[in-house]
Amino acid sequence: MKENLLSKIQSVEDLRKLSVQELPQLCEELRQFIIEQTAKHPGHLGSSLGVIELTVAIHYVFDTPNDKLIWDVGHQAYCHKILTGRKDQFSTNRRYGGISGFPRREESEFDAFGTGHSSTSISAALGMAVAAKMDGNMKRNHIAVIGDGAIGGGMAFEAMNQAPYRDVNMLVILNDNKISIDQSTGAMSKYLLSITASPAYNRLKSRMWNFFTFRTNHPNRVTNFFSKMGNSVKGWLFGGSNWFQSLGYRYFGPADGHDVIYMVKMLKGLKSLPGLKLFHVLTVKGKGLEVAEQNQTQYHAPGQFDPETGLIIKTDVGKQPPKYQDVFGNTILEFAREDEKVVGITPAMATGCSLTIMDKVFPNRVFDVGIAEQHAVTFSAGLATEGYIPFCNIYSSFLQRGYDQVIHDVALQKLPVIFCIDRAGLVGEDGSTHQGAFDLAFLRCIPDLVITSPLNEHELRNLMLTAYQNAKNHGLPFVIRYPRGRGVLTDWHNEPQVLPIGKGRMLREGEKVLVLTLGPLGNSVTHVIEKLQHEDIRPAHFDVRFLKPLDDRALEELANQYSVWVTVEDGTEKGGLFSEISEFLDCRDEKSYASTKRPHLMHVALPDQFITHGDIPNLYKEVGFDEVSIEKVIRDAWKKTL
Amino acid sequence: MKENLLSKIQSVEDLRKLSVQELPQLCEELRQFIIEQTAKHPGHLGSSLGVIELTVAIHYVFDTPNDKLIWDVGHQAYCHKILTGRKDQFSTNRRYGGISGFPRREESEFDAFGTGHSSTSISAALGMAVAAKMDGNMKRNHIAVIGDGAIGGGMAFEAMNQAPYRDVNMLVILNDNKISIDQSTGAMSKYLLSITASPAYNRLKSRMWNFFTFRTNHPNRVTNFFSKMGNSVKGWLFGGSNWFQSLGYRYFGPADGHDVIYMVKMLKGLKSLPGLKLFHVLTVKGKGLEVAEQNQTQYHAPGQFDPETGLIIKTDVGKQPPKYQDVFGNTILEFAREDEKVVGITPAMATGCSLTIMDKVFPNRVFDVGIAEQHAVTFSAGLATEGYIPFCNIYSSFLQRGYDQVIHDVALQKLPVIFCIDRAGLVGEDGSTHQGAFDLAFLRCIPDLVITSPLNEHELRNLMLTAYQNAKNHGLPFVIRYPRGRGVLTDWHNEPQVLPIGKGRMLREGEKVLVLTLGPLGNSVTHVIEKLQHEDIRPAHFDVRFLKPLDDRALEELANQYSVWVTVEDGTEKGGLFSEISEFLDCRDEKSYASTKRPHLMHVALPDQFITHGDIPNLYKEVGFDEVSIEKVIRDAWKKTL
Repeated sequence: MKENLLSKIQSVEDLRKLSVQELPQLCEELRQFIIEQTAKHPGHLGSSLGVIELTVAIHYVFDTPNDKLIWDVGHQAYCHKILTGRKDQFSTNRRYGGISGFPRREESEFDAFGTGHSSTSISAALGMAVAAKMDGNMKRNHIAVIGDGAIGGGMAFEAMNQAPYRDVNMLVILNDNKISIDQSTGAMSKYLLSITASPAYNRLKSRMWNFFTFRTNHPNRVTNFFSKMGNSVKGWLFGGSNWFQSLGYRYFGPADGHDVIYMVKMLKGLKSLPGLKLFHVLTVKGKGLEVAEQNQTQYHAPGQFDPETGLIIKTDVGKQPPKYQDVFGNTILEFAREDEKVVGITPAMATGCSLTIMDKVFPNRVFDVGIAEQHAVTFSAGLATEGYIPFCNIYSSFLQRGYDQVIHDVALQKLPVIFCIDRAGLVGEDGSTHQGAFDLAFLRCIPDLVITSPLNEHELRNLMLTAYQNAKNHGLPFVIRYPRGRGVLTDWHNEPQVLPIGKGRMLREGEKVLVLTLGPLGNSVTHVIEKLQHEDIRPAHFDVRFLKPLDDRALEELANQYSVWVTVEDGTEKGGLFSEISEFLDCRDEKSYASTKRPHLMHVALPDQFITHGDIPNLYKEVGFDEVSIEKVIRDAWKKTL
Repeated sequence: MKENLLSKIQSVEDLRKLSVQELPQLCEELRQFIIEQTAKHPGHLGSSLGVIELTVAIHYVFDTPNDKLIWDVGHQAYCHKILTGRKDQFSTNRRYGGISGFPRREESEFDAFGTGHSSTSISAALGMAVAAKMDGNMKRNHIAVIGDGAIGGGMAFEAMNQAPYRDVNMLVILNDNKISIDQSTGAMSKYLLSITASPAYNRLKSRMWNFFTFRTNHPNRVTNFFSKMGNSVKGWLFGGSNWFQSLGYRYFGPADGHDVIYMVKMLKGLKSLPGLKLFHVLTVKGKGLEVAEQNQTQYHAPGQFDPETGLIIKTDVGKQPPKYQDVFGNTILEFAREDEKVVGITPAMATGCSLTIMDKVFPNRVFDVGIAEQHAVTFSAGLATEGYIPFCNIYSSFLQRGYDQVIHDVALQKLPVIFCIDRAGLVGEDGSTHQGAFDLAFLRCIPDLVITSPLNEHELRNLMLTAYQNAKNHGLPFVIRYPRGRGVLTDWHNEPQVLPIGKGRMLREGEKVLVLTLGPLGNSVTHVIEKLQHEDIRPAHFDVRFLKPLDDRALEELANQYSVWVTVEDGTEKGGLFSEISEFLDCRDEKSYASTKRPHLMHVALPDQFITHGDIPNLYKEVGFDEVSIEKVIRDAWKKTL
């Protein structure tokens, strides 16, 4: 048995002491290490397995952290973290109090820019490259590693478009694995495929490069070669220009991203070339774990699995409530069967949001537009103008990308797009970049938007039907936000009801204290209030249902009956339900239609800070969403009335 | 003298009755009409003059409004409005109660999609085209007219990328005038120039087309020609593929967009071709008015001018306060002279935000990134990581486009980017798409952001210096929001002071009533309170200065002294200063550190609705920002204390 190399690697300096010939073995050890760790502690397996050789080669060749390396999205950075001093902490990956599943500047100087959302890397790298240029430092390298899905995001294009204008040192590595989370879509993907699918061209190119340059092991010759030939050779090879060249990039590739020795040679060549370069690397998502290679979407983040076979471990937990996602997926399918105008739109999250359920039956009415939230929203608006009923499903934190479009293209034109906002509230292990903390606040300020959140699965179905009917009647745009994960009802399949828009409902009458909830945290409130009955503490519980329009009439009456109010919501305390109720009570006071005094108002909401990663129970405890914390607030409210 | 043709045109049907040979005369009449009208009633002159022939040709050839025509941005749609039944109303263009300066669905069925912000047209057109396809209607045409600046916006790319995947009937007309408002930037612009700058190629292409197709006047032959030859001829003409073709578009052009007869022929050919097409048209911004052609940025929206000479009319109004924009521009230049780390970033608004003042002196430290708000924000973040001090200047309503980047790339990483948010509050004639109504609300929910607004020019300079010092000390990201237009001080050039972050200031002591203001509306409050002194109404006036962090300590004391509070802000009532103060008072109550009762709270803010276009005095009256309305609210507050 060979000596274990990984055990010797505590830093990139250790890596750089290895010979090039040792790198393939190191890659295999890294692969085993990631598989073993991720089997126990679930994470983003597939993309991290795909870039092991690339990661090793980058850190081997470039002078990180002085050279700046930015991982787009960042869920593929496991190997990067292991090589940059976090091997021993890697078992804490994504866990509460442990290291993040994404690059974070505060975690390591090797994490040059924090990521989590897609398509940001080129903008950030360009900023750093321009800074270096202004500092007169044309030696430093700036490397953005971006996937073929992420490069289709509009922001990446904006940066791509800007970069050639700036004459800087930047290397964009296009990690082309033909899949983002679901299969990549769009013209760019097709185009990349057309480049890579020409075997004659590839054989020729490969021979050319090997002959002219990389067999020589003389970086200077590489430089000379490229600078002498300019783009003419590649122009010839391509039979003209290519997409990237037409934008001003020196294009290299496609190259086998799993041949680490070849990657090292290539990167050495590219390092010695100044200016703007795009290196197109082909990789396989899940590389080295057969089942993961074959089921790339499932193994994007598979949960626990057997490290030997790769088989996913299913724990038998008896009959469980369904995921909200599946309730959404099954319900839109029901609607789609009834009405051919119902369509589904998702920006690259068809599996995550379970729109795949409808896609299997009506593939022509499901639109996965790729990583393109802005386009997803306005494309939905376009469909709505023609009488279609678009359910546009976007994760809460990703809707931040389509914000202007919600205002400018949907709400301003009163187009009845139905936004199903998934991953609202805390999402857990993905952490601060993915928490759905802000949507209630950033949506509430938009005029002419209906904003709702369901208490449970039945309510989700009721709200979906309400939104559907509202759209059918050319009503206002409609937002339904719900969390990641399971609901509370095993018998979720009710006959959905159309609800009156802007009306809440009293879940439990009570006295003195009124608890107002929006969304599934209401279930915890129900438990707490049930428990408190035995102590003769009897708060009322009102399910607001509609953050907007608010049920003013009901609340006006309740203001006369209950002297202490408590709002409970799984969003930020700045601008959501708490604010809405606080403003409501002041406006009531202002208008002087109050015959009694203003109720005291307390709140349970996310604090005004970014919320870290970890399991939901720990996070809930931290932010006060666990039942113990909620009980304490309600008891405090009760005490105020005594 | 020839018969006047325009007088006969009340609708597109009238237009279609003209012979092709009459169209050049009509275009000239339209040009004169637009010049005369816009000379009196200021508007977006340059871009509308540039597309007269194109607009006439589109409506002449296509079956609008059945065929869907979408104007990207929309400020170039004057000719479109005049031809589609709004000629007689055109004198009310952009005026309060008149027609909008942009396409609006509620204004006309010919306005297939409302615009105002850039780069949305392809997404919307694609939605409509997909709808038609699902309806089995492959005859309907969908036309997006988009400029060379707007096509560089990420959203347009997302839609471009998606479209070929969908097999629909869509024509993208690229209106290439080499300028958005300021000169277009970026690789795409360079690329378009490279296409158009090859005279040999253009002569050849022109001859080819004329010979094969358009001289024949047989649309069928055109179809046959194109379908037989496929892309091979154009492939040959281009010596390979081009950018658009590599994305799956059938590319046609470049063509002279001022030759209306040629445009008609071309569009007839394109109309008869199914599928996805891109037609590249060359136009001149300001065409037909010599000074406008020569000074394209100035004549983008020149204000009043002499219709004969084009000379801009400057009314002598004596010594006026400067524009906030110029105060910003001069102040950043002062800082830039002192510290070479100071840089300025703008997404295509260098003139509008007066960053041109710095650009003249330090062109290498000013970055106009084109219409690319997302990239502008994260590019600034990248610069900040390397110790630069980026002043990122974005209009309030356009920052909606960079929202996720403010959260994910700047605030989450605590990078000290300084956002100067221009056009905050009401902007006037540009109307609902451009009002800066939401920024306080959508920014306030973001953790770790400092949010401020200056009372006047001195304060703007103080806050800029404060932000600069804060960035120098690696402080938090910083927002300074200020309105379009003139300030209140003729002697604006103070020696700026560093202010304590999170501290407000008492502008006037008083009794019973406390008026809290954020930003320049505070000046109106000052006038009103001054006036009320004579009636022994003596409210206090507190300039909050920092919406975030709020001056809790000062407010805690004030809560004990003043029993009625009034907030005044030029942003939406949902989520800005009013909400912040309302929440503050509830939290104070909740924490039980209140020894007295909660003050009553009233507010002056934008109502929760989209605000139309018009002059500021009329709009202020409508929303209650005029001094008469503010006085009434303060009197009401005073009455409550009696």
